[in-house]
Amino acid sequence: MACKILVLNIGSTSFKFKYFNMDDLSVIASGKINSVFSKNAGCNFLSGDTEKSTVFDASDGYGTCLEMIIDFIDKNCADGINGVSAIGFKTVMAGGINYPCVIDDAVIEKMQEYSASAPAHNAPYIEAVNSVKKYFPNVTLVSSFETAFHNTIPDFASVYPIDKDIAKKYGIRKYGFHGAAHSYAAYKFGSEKNIVSVHLGGSSSVCAVKGGKSVDVSMGFSPQSGLPMNNRCGDIDVFAVLYLMEKENMSIDDARKFLCTRCGLYGMSGISNDLRDIEKANDTLVIDAFTYSVSKYICSYLAVLGKIDVISFSGGIGENSVIVKEKICSRLKFLGVELDSEKLKHKPAGEPYKISSDKSKVEVYITPVDEELMVAKNTYAFAERR
Amino acid sequence: MACKILVLNIGSTSFKFKYFNMDDLSVIASGKINSVFSKNAGCNFLSGDTEKSTVFDASDGYGTCLEMIIDFIDKNCADGINGVSAIGFKTVMAGGINYPCVIDDAVIEKMQEYSASAPAHNAPYIEAVNSVKKYFPNVTLVSSFETAFHNTIPDFASVYPIDKDIAKKYGIRKYGFHGAAHSYAAYKFGSEKNIVSVHLGGSSSVCAVKGGKSVDVSMGFSPQSGLPMNNRCGDIDVFAVLYLMEKENMSIDDARKFLCTRCGLYGMSGISNDLRDIEKANDTLVIDAFTYSVSKYICSYLAVLGKIDVISFSGGIGENSVIVKEKICSRLKFLGVELDSEKLKHKPAGEPYKISSDKSKVEVYITPVDEELMVAKNTYAFAERR
Repeated sequence: MACKILVLNIGSTSFKFKYFNMDDLSVIASGKINSVFSKNAGCNFLSGDTEKSTVFDASDGYGTCLEMIIDFIDKNCADGINGVSAIGFKTVMAGGINYPCVIDDAVIEKMQEYSASAPAHNAPYIEAVNSVKKYFPNVTLVSSFETAFHNTIPDFASVYPIDKDIAKKYGIRKYGFHGAAHSYAAYKFGSEKNIVSVHLGGSSSVCAVKGGKSVDVSMGFSPQSGLPMNNRCGDIDVFAVLYLMEKENMSIDDARKFLCTRCGLYGMSGISNDLRDIEKANDTLVIDAFTYSVSKYICSYLAVLGKIDVISFSGGIGENSVIVKEKICSRLKFLGVELDSEKLKHKPAGEPYKISSDKSKVEVYITPVDEELMVAKNTYAFAERR
Repeated sequence: MACKILVLNIGSTSFKFKYFNMDDLSVIASGKINSVFSKNAGCNFLSGDTEKSTVFDASDGYGTCLEMIIDFIDKNCADGINGVSAIGFKTVMAGGINYPCVIDDAVIEKMQEYSASAPAHNAPYIEAVNSVKKYFPNVTLVSSFETAFHNTIPDFASVYPIDKDIAKKYGIRKYGFHGAAHSYAAYKFGSEKNIVSVHLGGSSSVCAVKGGKSVDVSMGFSPQSGLPMNNRCGDIDVFAVLYLMEKENMSIDDARKFLCTRCGLYGMSGISNDLRDIEKANDTLVIDAFTYSVSKYICSYLAVLGKIDVISFSGGIGENSVIVKEKICSRLKFLGVELDSEKLKHKPAGEPYKISSDKSKVEVYITPVDEELMVAKNTYAFAERR
C-alpha cells in the first residue's frame, strides 16, 4: 500500500490540509477552511475532479473542521483516511526542540512555554493537535517545526550578544522561521546555487541558502523580528521598546500585544495591514521602508554567500506585488539584477517563474511555494528513520 | 583676535579636552584626565612643547578637573582661557534635539529624559555641563550631538515599524550615534566617495556615507543597538528580551542594566569586555560573531550605496585589531577588497593610512579619528550662524 501523509497547516482562523501519496508526491486531496471558530466557516475541498464547497458552523473550533476533512477523504479517496501513515504539522516554535519529532506531551509543553513569543501560531497549533490526537490515537503525529530548516545556521550567526549562561539556560538564540517556505526554494533551485529566498506575506522573512542549507535568516528568537510584518514590528531597538513601556506604563504582555498588533505595515501606515491597501493609498514611506529593509537583508547575505545566483520571491506580497519586487531589485542593480518588466506582472501557479531578463546576472523568480509538500517530505523522512 | 574653541569630551570616568585655533584648525592645547571621581585621577596635558602629567584628587568630579584644565591653559596659552569664543560638547542624545544648539535648560531637560536610554553618556554630560556653566557663565556652550550627522538619513531608513502616532509622540526613530567619528571619515575622504565608516571600540557602529552625508547607520534609537559592544548588547529580538524579563522577573530598569552590563563581547565570551583578551583566549565564536555582524552591516549598505569606494576603520578595535580587520574583509572579497598584509599591521597616528593592496577595488584605511576637531568645526559653524 502506498505511503500516505496528511499535512495539516493551522492558522489562527484557517485550517488547510493536503493529503499526499509519497510514492510519487502526488496530492490525493487538499482543501482549506476559512473562518474557523465562526458559525459561517467556509470550506473548499478538492480530490481529483471532485470539489466540495460549503458553509458550516465551526464555532467549536478545529474539531468540527477535522471531521469535515476526514469525511471528505473517506468519501473520495481510495482506502479513505485509514490509509494515512502519518500526520505532519507545520508547527512553529518549541525552543530547542527544532527538529522533526513526534508531538508528545513534552513537545506540547515546550510549545506552550514559547506561546507568548509566537502568539499567532503556538496556541492554535496546540489546540489543533489536541483535536487531531482524539481522532487519530494510533497515528504518528509529526512536528515539522518552521525552525528546523535553520539548524544549519552556524553558531556565530545565531548567537545573541548576551550573557552566555543566560542564553543557554533559556534557549535565547536565533531560531529562524518560515522553514517550509525557504526549504521549498532550496529544494526547487538545487544545492549548487546560492539562493536568497524572500518570503513576503502577512509574515515575512529573508533566508540565505548555500549548498541547499540555510546559512542565515532574518527572523530570530521569535517570528516577531527581522522584516516589518502585517501588524508585527520586526527589528527594533530594544531600548526604544523599554522606553515606550516606561512612558506608556506597559506590562510585558502589553508590550507584546503592542508589538504584534499596532506595528508593522499597519502601524507605520495607519491605513491597513494589507500592502495592497497601502499601495492604493500610495504611501511611499511605508513601501520604501519595507522594500529598503528587504534589500538590506538581501545585501547583508553577500557576507556569507559572496555571490547570489538566485533570488526567489514567495508569499502573498512576494508573488503578487509588482512594485515591491521592482523597488527591492532597483537597489540590487550593482549585482547585475535586471527584471523583465512584462514577466514581472505574471502571476504563476505551480513551478517557479523567471522574472529576470536574459541579461540579468542574477536569476530572479516568483516561486509559489508548496509548504505542505516540504512538511510531507519531512514527515515521511522522519517516519522512515523510526 | 583668533577665534578659539574649547572642546570637552566627557566620558563616565574620563575628561578630554582640545583647545583649537579655528583660523588654521591648529591645536593650542589638549589633554586627558583619567579616573575622574577617584582620589588618584591622572592628567596628561600638552601645549606646544609644554607637557604636564600629575596625579590629583578628583573625587568631587568634573569641577576639579575643569579647574586643572583652565589653569593649564591660562599658564601656557596666549590670552589664556579668556580667549575662548565658545565651548563645544560631544553630547550624545536628546531625542528630537539632534542638531547643534546652545545648551540651555530645555536641552538639559531633554538629555535627562533620554538618560536611561544612553546611561553611559547622558548623565556624565549633564553633570559636566553644569560644572562648566558655573565657570563660564558668559561663554556660549554648544551641543554637538552625536546624532546630528545622521539627520540626513532619509525617513524610510530611520522610521521604526510601530504605530506612527506613538512614534511621533515619543520621538521613536533611528537617530544614530558616533556622528563625530563618522563625520570625520566623511571629511577626510571627500564627498565624491561612497564611504563605509566602521567605528569599532568599546562602543561600535557602521555608517554609510554618500555625498559627504550619512545615509544609514547601525545604531538606532539608542546607542545600545546595532553591533555588539563591550558590555552592551546591540541588535537583539525584542521578544527574547521580553521572554527573559518574564523568566527572570526583571523590571524595565533591570532589563536595561542587564543589556548594558552583561551583554556584548563580555556576555558572549564570559571572559572580558576587551577584545584583546578575547583574542588572547582565542574565543573564535565571539570574534566570528562580532566580525560577521560588521561584515553584514557593510554589505547591507550596498543597498543604498550601490558601490563602496572606501572602507574606513577607526576606534580602538578598528585601528588596532589585525584579526578583526582581516576577518571582516575576508567576507568582502566579492567586492574586490584585498588587504596588504604588511600595511595591515601598521598603527598610524594622524592621517588615514591605506591598508588595502594596490590591486584592491575598494580602498581600505585605518583612520585615527579626531572627534574633537569635528565638534570644534560644528561649534564654530553654529557660533558663526548666530
